[in-house]
Amino acid sequence: MKSFLLATVLMAFSITGYSQNTQPYLSLAEAKRIADAAEAKAIENEWTVVIAIMDAGGHLILLRKIDGTQIGSVEVAQAKAKSAVYFKRSTKVFEDGVNDGNNRLMTLPNAVALEGGVPIFRDGHCIGAIGISGVRSDQDGIIAEAGLSVLESK
Amino acid sequence: MKSFLLATVLMAFSITGYSQNTQPYLSLAEAKRIADAAEAKAIENEWTVVIAIMDAGGHLILLRKIDGTQIGSVEVAQAKAKSAVYFKRSTKVFEDGVNDGNNRLMTLPNAVALEGGVPIFRDGHCIGAIGISGVRSDQDGIIAEAGLSVLESK
Amino acid sequence: MKSFLLATVLMAFSITGYSQNTQPYLSLAEAKRIADAAEAKAIENEWTVVIAIMDAGGHLILLRKIDGTQIGSVEVAQAKAKSAVYFKRSTKVFEDGVNDGNNRLMTLPNAVALEGGVPIFRDGHCIGAIGISGVRSDQDGIIAEAGLSVLESK
Amino acid sequence: MKSFLLATVLMAFSITGYSQNTQPYLSLAEAKRIADAAEAKAIENEWTVVIAIMDAGGHLILLRKIDGTQIGSVEVAQAKAKSAVYFKRSTKVFEDGVNDGNNRLMTLPNAVALEGGVPIFRDGHCIGAIGISGVRSDQDGIIAEAGLSVLESK
Repeated sequence: MKSFLLATVLMAFSITGYSQNTQPYLSLAEAKRIADAAEAKAIENEWTVVIAIMDAGGHLILLRKIDGTQIGSVEVAQAKAKSAVYFKRSTKVFEDGVNDGNNRLMTLPNAVALEGGVPIFRDGHCIGAIGISGVRSDQDGIIAEAGLSVLESK
Repeated sequence: MKSFLLATVLMAFSITGYSQNTQPYLSLAEAKRIADAAEAKAIENEWTVVIAIMDAGGHLILLRKIDGTQIGSVEVAQAKAKSAVYFKRSTKVFEDGVNDGNNRLMTLPNAVALEGGVPIFRDGHCIGAIGISGVRSDQDGIIAEAGLSVLESK
Repeated sequence: MKSFLLATVLMAFSITGYSQNTQPYLSLAEAKRIADAAEAKAIENEWTVVIAIMDAGGHLILLRKIDGTQIGSVEVAQAKAKSAVYFKRSTKVFEDGVNDGNNRLMTLPNAVALEGGVPIFRDGHCIGAIGISGVRSDQDGIIAEAGLSVLESK
Repeated sequence: MKSFLLATVLMAFSITGYSQNTQPYLSLAEAKRIADAAEAKAIENEWTVVIAIMDAGGHLILLRKIDGTQIGSVEVAQAKAKSAVYFKRSTKVFEDGVNDGNNRLMTLPNAVALEGGVPIFRDGHCIGAIGISGVRSDQDGIIAEAGLSVLESK
């Protein structure tokens, strides 16, 4: 009887899969797995990049700078990740927009219009983002996707 | 005779409804009514946005972020309101300008070229602005106008 | 039998009260209730203040500036809320520390050493903060507590 | 004869182990080893911290945020590492100075007066720094030293 009551109480919390007013988050363990996959892809191509992974508030969880990467990329990788989590969309969307002539997008505070920033969603929530900078923006994008591929297979 | 002169002078001061060297201002009570109308319009359309209302100095009077709105909109809504009050014109004017090829407008400090920022005038004075961000810029503009509509009917 | 299985599955999600890797968050509806209580307390005392409420990432959910409040408080209220959420402790802790001679605390980026910033916890998670500025820091603190008192009674 | 002179000149460059006008640097591989040791120490003590490792220019090479660490520490850990590399001394030196009444140190741009930032030297060159933030500053210092201990044993 006691355990039945407990189950009932617990059910009340979990009716949506998440408790009321809660949201999933990205852990450091997951960020490391993402970064390992991104770094492996970069090394495989002999590309020097910075890998930045942020949480849902746009705060760094993890950053790695491969030896020899231009120092400007330390900030650019973070700016891309921030743009992705702030606007819940890939920076490629802004790059494509500007390429299509929508220059006005460049006046959006915190928006970066270069591929390489990708948001991370879980159960409909944006839980963070990855930002890559160091090589061509389409190559940065390839590394970002390589990193995020580990999440799909879990 | 003396009092007649005084009365004449006083009348001269009050002909516009305001004394010399004064200007009307936007109150928190009005800002709440504007925000209520804007929020109702957003909810009616199931749009998630940030509503920012500023005074004549470009300082926040009120801000509301509807649950689930991208966090980038917190800064963008403020930037739009600031642009509107700093330049005493709608951000749509800058958006149209950039769309017409006047990219040089994007070098204007504090100018945002995306619809959704609208100045508020009273008796010829710019007393503040509203800034909306979260959905498409034309939709942001619809919410801004819905908010300001409460002022016209007062 | 079917419902028993469902209960078992749901229990797996809710063993800690929250699903794995999820955390609670502060809603706009709650922020409004907090702000209403804080504003009522300020008006009761004829105190002019800015009320700022932030989420777990240090991003604004709500801001209100009572008419006549010094404009510096718009930024100070946000800085206090940010300090509270960034360091998961009341700004009074830093104020007391500096008053006790720990001046080194003033070199902490984003730390504000004036009472009036209070973090909001739910089930062990810091889900946001309130920041008040406009009157004496101990008075700011009274308003902050008045605002948060609505959460305890729910 | 010409090639003999060239060989002699080249030999002269390499006599110290480094060519003239070169300096050693901190690699990502080393930064990971440092971070692993620091992280292990933090977990052993159940301390939640951010670990930041910078290069000789004060640019991030690596950052890790242990789950549950206050988000303010993301910036503080970087500020400590930056202070250490900018002034080629431990942030504890500034903390001790301020504790001794030298408040004027707090006006030094980029100086942090809280233990936890330690520069890294190799062959007389400052090649970077580690910054730790999240627990008491003396505990942050313990984690920093645990991280750097891997360099001494190599």
